[in-house]
Amino acid sequence: MKLWSGRLSGSMDATFALLNNSLPFDKRLAQVDVRGSIAWAHALAQAGVLKPAEANKIVAGLQAILQEFEHAQFVFQEGDEDIHTAVERRLTELIGPEGGMLHTGRSRNDQVATDFCLWVREAVDRLEQRLAGLQSALLERAEQDMGIILPGYTHFQQAQPILFSHWWLSHFWELQRDRQRLQNVRQQVSEMPLGSGALAGTSFPIDRFALAEELGFSRPCSNSLDGVGNRDFAAELLFWAALAGVHLSKLAEALILYSTNEFGFITLADEFSTGSSLMPQKKNPDPLELVRAKSSVLIGRLTGLLSTLKALPSAYDKDLQEDKPPVFEAVDTMELLLPVMSGLLMTLTVNSVRTRAAVNWQVLATDLADYLVQHGVPFRQAHSATGQAVRRAAELAVSLPDLPLADWQAIHPMFAEDLFEVFNIERSLEKRSAWGGTAPQAVKEQLELARKALGQIL
Amino acid sequence: MKLWSGRLSGSMDATFALLNNSLPFDKRLAQVDVRGSIAWAHALAQAGVLKPAEANKIVAGLQAILQEFEHAQFVFQEGDEDIHTAVERRLTELIGPEGGMLHTGRSRNDQVATDFCLWVREAVDRLEQRLAGLQSALLERAEQDMGIILPGYTHFQQAQPILFSHWWLSHFWELQRDRQRLQNVRQQVSEMPLGSGALAGTSFPIDRFALAEELGFSRPCSNSLDGVGNRDFAAELLFWAALAGVHLSKLAEALILYSTNEFGFITLADEFSTGSSLMPQKKNPDPLELVRAKSSVLIGRLTGLLSTLKALPSAYDKDLQEDKPPVFEAVDTMELLLPVMSGLLMTLTVNSVRTRAAVNWQVLATDLADYLVQHGVPFRQAHSATGQAVRRAAELAVSLPDLPLADWQAIHPMFAEDLFEVFNIERSLEKRSAWGGTAPQAVKEQLELARKALGQIL
Amino acid sequence: MKLWSGRLSGSMDATFALLNNSLPFDKRLAQVDVRGSIAWAHALAQAGVLKPAEANKIVAGLQAILQEFEHAQFVFQEGDEDIHTAVERRLTELIGPEGGMLHTGRSRNDQVATDFCLWVREAVDRLEQRLAGLQSALLERAEQDMGIILPGYTHFQQAQPILFSHWWLSHFWELQRDRQRLQNVRQQVSEMPLGSGALAGTSFPIDRFALAEELGFSRPCSNSLDGVGNRDFAAELLFWAALAGVHLSKLAEALILYSTNEFGFITLADEFSTGSSLMPQKKNPDPLELVRAKSSVLIGRLTGLLSTLKALPSAYDKDLQEDKPPVFEAVDTMELLLPVMSGLLMTLTVNSVRTRAAVNWQVLATDLADYLVQHGVPFRQAHSATGQAVRRAAELAVSLPDLPLADWQAIHPMFAEDLFEVFNIERSLEKRSAWGGTAPQAVKEQLELARKALGQIL
Amino acid sequence: MKLWSGRLSGSMDATFALLNNSLPFDKRLAQVDVRGSIAWAHALAQAGVLKPAEANKIVAGLQAILQEFEHAQFVFQEGDEDIHTAVERRLTELIGPEGGMLHTGRSRNDQVATDFCLWVREAVDRLEQRLAGLQSALLERAEQDMGIILPGYTHFQQAQPILFSHWWLSHFWELQRDRQRLQNVRQQVSEMPLGSGALAGTSFPIDRFALAEELGFSRPCSNSLDGVGNRDFAAELLFWAALAGVHLSKLAEALILYSTNEFGFITLADEFSTGSSLMPQKKNPDPLELVRAKSSVLIGRLTGLLSTLKALPSAYDKDLQEDKPPVFEAVDTMELLLPVMSGLLMTLTVNSVRTRAAVNWQVLATDLADYLVQHGVPFRQAHSATGQAVRRAAELAVSLPDLPLADWQAIHPMFAEDLFEVFNIERSLEKRSAWGGTAPQAVKEQLELARKALGQIL
Repeated sequence: MKLWSGRLSGSMDATFALLNNSLPFDKRLAQVDVRGSIAWAHALAQAGVLKPAEANKIVAGLQAILQEFEHAQFVFQEGDEDIHTAVERRLTELIGPEGGMLHTGRSRNDQVATDFCLWVREAVDRLEQRLAGLQSALLERAEQDMGIILPGYTHFQQAQPILFSHWWLSHFWELQRDRQRLQNVRQQVSEMPLGSGALAGTSFPIDRFALAEELGFSRPCSNSLDGVGNRDFAAELLFWAALAGVHLSKLAEALILYSTNEFGFITLADEFSTGSSLMPQKKNPDPLELVRAKSSVLIGRLTGLLSTLKALPSAYDKDLQEDKPPVFEAVDTMELLLPVMSGLLMTLTVNSVRTRAAVNWQVLATDLADYLVQHGVPFRQAHSATGQAVRRAAELAVSLPDLPLADWQAIHPMFAEDLFEVFNIERSLEKRSAWGGTAPQAVKEQLELARKALGQIL
Repeated sequence: MKLWSGRLSGSMDATFALLNNSLPFDKRLAQVDVRGSIAWAHALAQAGVLKPAEANKIVAGLQAILQEFEHAQFVFQEGDEDIHTAVERRLTELIGPEGGMLHTGRSRNDQVATDFCLWVREAVDRLEQRLAGLQSALLERAEQDMGIILPGYTHFQQAQPILFSHWWLSHFWELQRDRQRLQNVRQQVSEMPLGSGALAGTSFPIDRFALAEELGFSRPCSNSLDGVGNRDFAAELLFWAALAGVHLSKLAEALILYSTNEFGFITLADEFSTGSSLMPQKKNPDPLELVRAKSSVLIGRLTGLLSTLKALPSAYDKDLQEDKPPVFEAVDTMELLLPVMSGLLMTLTVNSVRTRAAVNWQVLATDLADYLVQHGVPFRQAHSATGQAVRRAAELAVSLPDLPLADWQAIHPMFAEDLFEVFNIERSLEKRSAWGGTAPQAVKEQLELARKALGQIL
Repeated sequence: MKLWSGRLSGSMDATFALLNNSLPFDKRLAQVDVRGSIAWAHALAQAGVLKPAEANKIVAGLQAILQEFEHAQFVFQEGDEDIHTAVERRLTELIGPEGGMLHTGRSRNDQVATDFCLWVREAVDRLEQRLAGLQSALLERAEQDMGIILPGYTHFQQAQPILFSHWWLSHFWELQRDRQRLQNVRQQVSEMPLGSGALAGTSFPIDRFALAEELGFSRPCSNSLDGVGNRDFAAELLFWAALAGVHLSKLAEALILYSTNEFGFITLADEFSTGSSLMPQKKNPDPLELVRAKSSVLIGRLTGLLSTLKALPSAYDKDLQEDKPPVFEAVDTMELLLPVMSGLLMTLTVNSVRTRAAVNWQVLATDLADYLVQHGVPFRQAHSATGQAVRRAAELAVSLPDLPLADWQAIHPMFAEDLFEVFNIERSLEKRSAWGGTAPQAVKEQLELARKALGQIL
Repeated sequence: MKLWSGRLSGSMDATFALLNNSLPFDKRLAQVDVRGSIAWAHALAQAGVLKPAEANKIVAGLQAILQEFEHAQFVFQEGDEDIHTAVERRLTELIGPEGGMLHTGRSRNDQVATDFCLWVREAVDRLEQRLAGLQSALLERAEQDMGIILPGYTHFQQAQPILFSHWWLSHFWELQRDRQRLQNVRQQVSEMPLGSGALAGTSFPIDRFALAEELGFSRPCSNSLDGVGNRDFAAELLFWAALAGVHLSKLAEALILYSTNEFGFITLADEFSTGSSLMPQKKNPDPLELVRAKSSVLIGRLTGLLSTLKALPSAYDKDLQEDKPPVFEAVDTMELLLPVMSGLLMTLTVNSVRTRAAVNWQVLATDLADYLVQHGVPFRQAHSATGQAVRRAAELAVSLPDLPLADWQAIHPMFAEDLFEVFNIERSLEKRSAWGGTAPQAVKEQLELARKALGQIL
């Protein structure tokens, strides 16, 4: 069945029919499509376009179809070219020619845009849950691993010592911004396209405000051309997924390195590891690598949609059919990656002995420069002097604390015996006590704030 | 001058120095960098790290440098590898070794992140102005062209008649969402990175809340690792630019087509057209084509940054240096495209005779189907019958109103003499009077709302 | 069944198992996987690792499995995490523990790389056929439409008259380059990864040259690390698809415009058109819009893979699992788009009356400037004078040939009565007779070359 | 000065003029533009369009301009909107109105396409040199580091021991494919667009074959529409750069990790390192991080151009002006990255003691499984048994060679005393002696082939 039969003769070319067929993916809209149609039938009745009896018959038919979808009993047929066609076909089977009244004053253009908004709204809810779930996991780790010290890195060279909890929390805040962004996506699906018709508005006296309310939208969109053509929400959701994916990939990258034999900071649980078909000793961090790879796939999906939307000239073009596969894929991907990451985090082991042992004394060089600053040396000179000491120690192949005082003093006269007291990692941490720093007390305050932030969008 | 001289021997390889040098682009941060440093000097003084006299001297020196930048008198030198180095070098020239005290407790990592946030905040203000400027141009056109009718298109085939004002307004709402999104970008730069140090926080008792206030931030960031590594705001600005660019490209595409000889709906002003080096008759819509192309460049820039950020393992990596060129380019591009579009819109001529003449009677086919619906025929049958009439007219090579009544009735018995009254474009428009539709009254109400929306972010 | 059972305790986390499972897509490798395994069994036998009887048993088992795949009788089981696991599991079911000998000296890393190369090689063959099919369609149109004149456009403004055949052929050459590029992809899969082991090479004395020959490769790869990690061929295939997609999108865009009511140059066949669910008159060029959109999807897929490959540090990482879905999608897409375009081209109607009528006399302005050049006026002055004449005609609202001689001469004294002989479109065409121009004779020569080029890769 | 002055009244809008101005980037085409013009003057003379004296005067003027460009003495003027305009303006200044004869029968459309091809051809030559330079550096390292053993990784977990030379060579082959691909790019610029006119061919009897020869092209393009619109070569160059960039990023990523404190496999030379403004001890691998980041920028540039080209409808559109900035940037980037990488490789130190010490005995697990295979155990069982031994050793917290024989035999009865002979890394390497493996002899043969391959494109 086609929804347009009078104008064109002959049947569709077979290869084109394959290309045109959106049912393989848009059947995921089945339930929202039917719910949208029920609301539309109500609106037509309210507007006097359908008689009450007609409307009731249609609504009853649609509810039966909804049941079929909910119980996976709906049977698609060969000619169903999209979900809308399938539903109208089934409705007519169930209730007869009055099924053909449902589409009065409506177009697939405003219908599919509405379906898609409804679907995205529900996806946003699910994603938010899972995002919060991963944030909770990070909070739990931050609490559990409080007190564990590891080297902090910049340029992946050891920089300054930090608390593992501080590191876990740094990822919490990335996800917090992702959660805020998800709220922005939700905003983008708060206007209802339905009632925009094909592009020019509906020609029947539909109360679009009431209709919007029934479907849970804040209001009807203000311009019918924009209503049928607007896919900002899809682009925004894909951007959300791409950036959240990037955040997950950063966490994944670090954990992959931390789990190498050379770093040895963490050990993944066996249930989040895989082996090798050839090498019996292997325990591979596959979930983290897949997270990393998927983040790139998501970037490509965003690129693809933006490029699709670019320079599309008018209200609705068939190009827009390519909006759904990337959105569905992005949502599915994130719905899978987020709980995998949560599970992986909650089951990994932090090897606190190895993290502490990895700390090279050089990471206290800034503290040594600060030592000179406290003795009145301008920081830039203090920095240079300390740098020379590091180089001197490297030349002598000794650890920094083993560099003799004489060498220190040869470099800068303000170095004195008490410089060796600087070699105290705990004290170094405690000094970073300004808001947001890695001092234990500051991290506790941060954790407090994070707990609150989890319960609300700041 | 390098800000790190003690640790490494020898000088930098020449090709690497070229690659490493960020001054060609980051000098755009000059003024925000100095302002950030002034605030930092205040904070160091407040924390007792600098004596008042030292702080005053430093601040005076920085203000002199600010003047130099404002009057384009600052002289960069060969060895200045980035803007921060250049400013500290100049400060030391001006005030002596105390210049070396400024960087106490601070790192280029938190410094550049702060500079970049400040720069983006100002860019957002300018962009918002220009976006509102283009929205105003659309509103003016919508008012001015009220009453002009043109064919509305879907699939770039004539669909239903619409008002030109309705079409202009459809682009207004896209930009309104862009303006809302710009607010979201602003949110992303409301937390101050300064005081995060290299990655672990600052080791001096800086009051980061007071510092944030002085620099106009809402609050300091909550985690120092996140503070130096967060580039969400850059990604979000690039996404904003890419999507706003897509919106401009859609408008551009339509106007390019409307200005062809074949459509003839609009004529661009000569000052927004170019000629050909070879073909004397040419008047080309180059600005619109450049808008269209630039939208793709922006998509690529977003892709590039997201891919750069992907899987970066730690707090700060040098990869982040590649964050600024795309953001600067995106802002520059949009700062140029928006006023070009505004100017082009305000100076083009709408050829209302040609737009009206272009309307093919077939665009009333939906109204003919509605005619049958009003006579009790289910819409799906009405649609099919009308489609057959269109096909019959095509076979007879007659215009739809010229198809004899007999043919209509042969197709469906409910067609009667009064069907010909449907061939009234104005009446067709008036029927689309539900909220958001193209009826003149509805468009006036929409215009009213748009005027309000321009003054506020809904 | 897992191929690695000794090292890890416990079972895989359920969400991770979902993420990890590649069977849904890599089962498309089934037949090449089995063929690769048969060759591997031969190689193991030749190397003396398998006894002849063992090898025969294994090969017989594999051939039975190949039959099962060919007849769609192979039954996947719950625990099959990828196609390699499924095949080895089935082999062991069929022939017992000797099935476990097949993987000796081989890894899934070199196995899957080999499978993928084999699959791509076959895909390249199919794509080349379909590409040549579309080129043939373009040649047929070029022959069939010889003599039809239409306006040539630059900036989508009428520029100079051209032959429709010339326009069709311009698209032929784009595809010819695509076909050459496909040869380059084929080159990229001419080296065999098999025998690279997990990363370090196989530890058994396999004759990789003989193995390569059996599997139809030119030679074994020269470095085992590169062998398992190389995905250049996948990137190159995706780039091929993206650029070929861009070429199709350009053709599609033009045909969409040519089929508008306003241009009216072509009419699509009904079997390559769709209608509207609401508007009975609609005949939409959906296949062309889908081609246009798919080209963007392909760009995104390329972006995604390149971003996935970026900064992958070592021989094989699980990220590489994400190489297959985009390649499969790209091949499927092009395998569909190419015949759809061929069919659409062969069934559309060119409306030669409308194309000729659309030619505006202004397109002869270059010829008028050439007229002055032939009378000794430097081209730049001739161009300016003709431009003024065009403007003058526009001011007087007359067609260019109707501009009185006096006006021409007021602009430039070298204009004389015979200038009006320039208004001859056929003559204008004939003048573009240099190689590659639109003169009928030149187009015939070009067609001749194109015919030859179709039979070979130039 | 504009090259089109007659048709349009008024001057260009100032913001549009900024947008339209391509001189800031296309001035890089200066020399190829002049050379193309000299050839065009010759062709016009040969065709009898210019008298010999006119042609000589024009050519002399152009040669003077070429000198000005070569000596950086050419002075651009305010109104020069692109390089072509600037050159024609200067020519007319130098030789008078005959300068206006040069553009006869030519358009900026075919001119700029030709310039761009010429520029790319020269860029390809330079890039090939630098690519070969980096390949040479890899070969030198492979020779120099022969005999150094390090762990080979998959999933960034230790997998099997390899030779450092084998690892260096794996990167050689990636670049070898990049060099082949560069040859394909060169192919793409072997056809000359000049003589295509604006789109329809030139109307003067130009011998395009002679012209092509003079400019070093293989032949003129076969279709004028394609000649002015073809940008495949730009897309292909960007793809080349993106994929070569990916290859560099992979090498960079590994070297970044190898230079961490935790791995410690290599030490970068000071001249390829940077320090920190805050942390005195820092020695950062900035060049490698910038290489990594730039690879993403290049991906974005490719994306941008493909999206720009998508759905461009006709021969030449102004959108094509956006083809040059990404190509220039990509070439500049690669011209910088390649020598930086070469220099960095040649100056780094491999710490052979640490690489050897890093090898964990577990990497011989495959050899242990092979041991069982040699005793007749099917590989899959051998794999499982060895995996259990690895797990057992982990449970006992002993190194694999320290696991008592009794434990081995409890797992599989075929393990015997001589299993401990497997713990010999050199022997393990030697076993990978099949072509392409990591055995010293195989690596030497590979090196031999690589040396040959460097001298030719295979």
